[in-house]
Amino acid sequence: MAADPDCLFCKIVAGQIPSTRVYEDERTIAFMDINPGTRGHLLVIPREHAKDLLEIDPEDLAACARTAQLLAQRAKDKLNADGINLINSCGPKAWQTVFHFHIHVIPRYDGDPLRLPWQPAPGDRDEIAQAAELLSA
Amino acid sequence: MAADPDCLFCKIVAGQIPSTRVYEDERTIAFMDINPGTRGHLLVIPREHAKDLLEIDPEDLAACARTAQLLAQRAKDKLNADGINLINSCGPKAWQTVFHFHIHVIPRYDGDPLRLPWQPAPGDRDEIAQAAELLSA
Ligand SMILES: [Zn+2]
Ligand SMILES: [Zn+2]
Repeated sequence: MAADPDCLFCKIVAGQIPSTRVYEDERTIAFMDINPGTRGHLLVIPREHAKDLLEIDPEDLAACARTAQLLAQRAKDKLNADGINLINSCGPKAWQTVFHFHIHVIPRYDGDPLRLPWQPAPGDRDEIAQAAELLSA
Repeated sequence: MAADPDCLFCKIVAGQIPSTRVYEDERTIAFMDINPGTRGHLLVIPREHAKDLLEIDPEDLAACARTAQLLAQRAKDKLNADGINLINSCGPKAWQTVFHFHIHVIPRYDGDPLRLPWQPAPGDRDEIAQAAELLSA
């Protein structure tokens, strides 16, 4: 499927909107969530536009899952995360708000207050940048 | 990795503990969660034991993701779900309670009360069996 000209994440893939990338390969990119639920919260998306879990090409889905796994390992190694949640939201009734498939990779820390759904709020830019630097290596 | 003799889900794979299977293939099986968060809540697991996201073989992870996608489609088609959440919990601090990798496939319905973490409580057996029958076809 071609890029959707109205899709925020397609614009991030194309570099038309800035993002803090921490990983990319042939099929996927990963970048920091600007409204993080916890320190190091990032998103994995396919380069190819697909609205959601029901539309994504199975090979792209598999590639996104592998990228999420790789970044979960980095979150453990580099951010000392105590655990990880992967979350996909398919459809507005499941809390999806951007309609380009994405997997949330949410590092967890002992005693963190994460509950779902969380109320998205902008994170501290310096803290996000610092976590991104650690996750990029 | 060989089956873990102390692992609940390895026993489910081996048929030593009953479960309500709705799908199986070479690498994965899917069965109903007995403490459902919503109607149709099921789990996708690899046949091979792996403790969590950090340990699972990448090919098994990809296979689990594809099985989850297939069952998300069935939940939409057969249960008239309005959305789907996929959730993986890696580590006790991320709400993991059974240490054999699993993806929660949670159908969502307009107005359902799901929040995470939910308090697991046994579901109605007849309702689970009825949803399973619809998801198996
Ligand atoms: Zn897009
Ligand atoms: Zn096991």
